[in-house]
Amino acid sequence: MSMTKIPLEYAIGVDIGGTNTKCGIVNRRGEVLQYEQLSTPEYENPEAFVDALCVRLNLMIEKVGGIELIKGIGVGAPNGNYYTGTIEYAPNLRWVGVVPLADMISQRMGLATALTNDANAAAVGEMQYGAAKGMRDFITITLGTGVGSGIVANGQLIYGHDGFAGELGHTIIRPGGRPHWSTKLKGSLEAYASATGVVLTAREMLLNEPEKPSMLRKYNLEELTSKQIFDCAMQGDEISQAVYRFTGQILGESLANFVMFSSPEAIILFGGLIKAGSLIFDPTIEHMERNLLPIFKNKVKVIKSDLHEADAAILGASALVWEMKQSSSSL
Amino acid sequence: MSMTKIPLEYAIGVDIGGTNTKCGIVNRRGEVLQYEQLSTPEYENPEAFVDALCVRLNLMIEKVGGIELIKGIGVGAPNGNYYTGTIEYAPNLRWVGVVPLADMISQRMGLATALTNDANAAAVGEMQYGAAKGMRDFITITLGTGVGSGIVANGQLIYGHDGFAGELGHTIIRPGGRPHWSTKLKGSLEAYASATGVVLTAREMLLNEPEKPSMLRKYNLEELTSKQIFDCAMQGDEISQAVYRFTGQILGESLANFVMFSSPEAIILFGGLIKAGSLIFDPTIEHMERNLLPIFKNKVKVIKSDLHEADAAILGASALVWEMKQSSSSL
Repeated sequence: MSMTKIPLEYAIGVDIGGTNTKCGIVNRRGEVLQYEQLSTPEYENPEAFVDALCVRLNLMIEKVGGIELIKGIGVGAPNGNYYTGTIEYAPNLRWVGVVPLADMISQRMGLATALTNDANAAAVGEMQYGAAKGMRDFITITLGTGVGSGIVANGQLIYGHDGFAGELGHTIIRPGGRPHWSTKLKGSLEAYASATGVVLTAREMLLNEPEKPSMLRKYNLEELTSKQIFDCAMQGDEISQAVYRFTGQILGESLANFVMFSSPEAIILFGGLIKAGSLIFDPTIEHMERNLLPIFKNKVKVIKSDLHEADAAILGASALVWEMKQSSSSL
Repeated sequence: MSMTKIPLEYAIGVDIGGTNTKCGIVNRRGEVLQYEQLSTPEYENPEAFVDALCVRLNLMIEKVGGIELIKGIGVGAPNGNYYTGTIEYAPNLRWVGVVPLADMISQRMGLATALTNDANAAAVGEMQYGAAKGMRDFITITLGTGVGSGIVANGQLIYGHDGFAGELGHTIIRPGGRPHWSTKLKGSLEAYASATGVVLTAREMLLNEPEKPSMLRKYNLEELTSKQIFDCAMQGDEISQAVYRFTGQILGESLANFVMFSSPEAIILFGGLIKAGSLIFDPTIEHMERNLLPIFKNKVKVIKSDLHEADAAILGASALVWEMKQSSSSL
C-alpha cells in the first residue's frame, strides 16, 4: 500500500514431488533465474520440510535482489487443494492427514502463497508460458510415473466444488480391467498409460506370447523399465511397438471421452511416455478420432508440451502467482 | 437507451425437439405464463418453421402485454451452438447442414436471441429456477429417449472451444460394447442409460435366460417399451428389476468418471428413467461411489431435478435470457 512500493517482478515456483521438491525464481517470460532442490521424504513432518524449504527460498531471493521483487509463491503438490491451500491425504508423501502448507509457507515467508495439485499447476504453466498461450479451452495430461491432468475451460482452471477436479488418470476406461496398484480401481487410465502401466502391458504381452521373439526377453521381467521398452521399440522390436499401440489405443479412447466432456481446442501431452513420438501419438490420435461424434472429428489438436521438462514443474507452480488477484499479493 | 424504457420483465423460452417445439413466456421466478406448441417435422425448411413459430410468439407476447416487456428469447435445440447461434447437422431434425436459427428468429422478432443445445439449456434452467440454485459446480443429465447433459463449472456453463461441450451421453463406458443405433459408437452411455437402451437391455436379458419367468414375456419383444419394463419392475418382476440394476451400474460408473473430471457438488438427474426412483438411484449411487477415488467419496449429491417435467425444456431455454449480457438485450 506504500507509495514507494517497488514493482513486483518475480514469482517463486515450488513443485513438491514424492521424491524431490524443486523450487525456483521465475520471471514473467518463464525464465528460471534461480533453482534449488531438496529431498522430500527426508523430512519427517511438514514443519521440518517448510524450515528447510524456506532456507532455500531465502537464499534464492537474496540472489535475485531481495523480497521486494517477489510477487508471491506458487506451490504444486500431490492432492493439493487450491481453495484451502492444503495438501490432503497425499498417498505419495510421508505427511499424514491435512497439511495447511500454503499458510505455513506464507507465514514464514511473508508472501502470498497459492497451492494446487501439480497437474493443475502444469496447465496454468502451459497457459502462461507454453503451448496453450492464448487458448481458453484445453486439457493438459502428464504421462509420467502416474497420469496427471489439468482442465481449462472458459479460460479458467476447473477446480470443482472441493478443489480436486481434474483427476483424469483415475477415470475408468476398461471397466473390470487391470487393477491399479495403489487405488485398487479397475481399468483406470493410469493403470495403462503411465510408465508403470506400460511395463505391466509389456510383461502381459511377453507372457501371453511366450513363443514370439522380442529384444525385451534379454531383461529380467521383474525389473523391466519403460525406458527399456522405449529403446527396443525404437529399434523395431515388435512386442515393444505393440505395447505403444495398445497404450495409445487406451489413451485415445480416454481422450475421446474427455473431448465429449469439455470440447477443448487442444490436448497437450507431457511426460516421459511422449518421448516415443509418433509411436504413441499416432495410435492415440487414431483411436481418439475413431470414438468421437462427427461434430468433434478432426478439430482437436493433440500436441506436445513445449515447456522444458526440467523446468516445467517449477514454471507451472510459478504461473499460479501471476494468476493471483492483486489484493492477495500483500498479506 | 431511451429514458422511458420499461423494465424488461419476461423471457421467452423455445425448446425445439425432434417431434414437438414448445414455447412459452416465463417470469423471473420460473412461472410459465403463456404456452404454445407446434409440430417440428411438419416444416420442411427452417424458414417455414420460423414463420410458424413467430406467429405463436407474437400471439403470446400480445397476451402478456406487448414486446416492451420481453427481455429476449432463449432457444434450446439439438446440436445447438451457443457461440454462433446455429443448429449444426442435427440428426433428429429434417433441416440439413448449418441453420442460423438464432439470427433468423432475432431478425423476425426484433429481440436478442440466444441458442444452445437443449441439455445445456436444461442446466441453466436448473441453476436459475431449480435444484442447482446457488451451486457453482454441477452436472445435469437427462435420461430420456437419449442422454443429454449440461456441465457447469466455476458458475459457468462449459461450452468448449466450439460451443459443443457436454456430450456425456456419447462417452464410452463399455469399450467394444453395444453399438449405438445412430452414432454407431460402441459402448456409449446413451446405448445403455436411455429409454432405448433400457429396452435393448431387457431384450438381451430375456433372450439370455429363456427359462426364467418374467412378466415381460407377455409382450411382443419387438414392441417392448421402457414404460412396460418400469411397470413390471414396480410389480416386483425380477428381470425388469435386473434391467434397472444393470442400467444403474453403467450410469454410476459413468458418473464416477464425470466426478473425477469436474468434481461437481451435485449431479442432477432428469427424464423418464428416473421415475423408477430408488430402483435406478440406488445402483447408480452404489456404483458411482465404488469407482471414485477416496477424496471424492460420499461428497457428491445425486439428486432429482425439481423442475416440472412439462415445463422444464421451456424454463431451461428461457433461463438463457437472464444470463444474457445487458448490451445484447437491445438489438
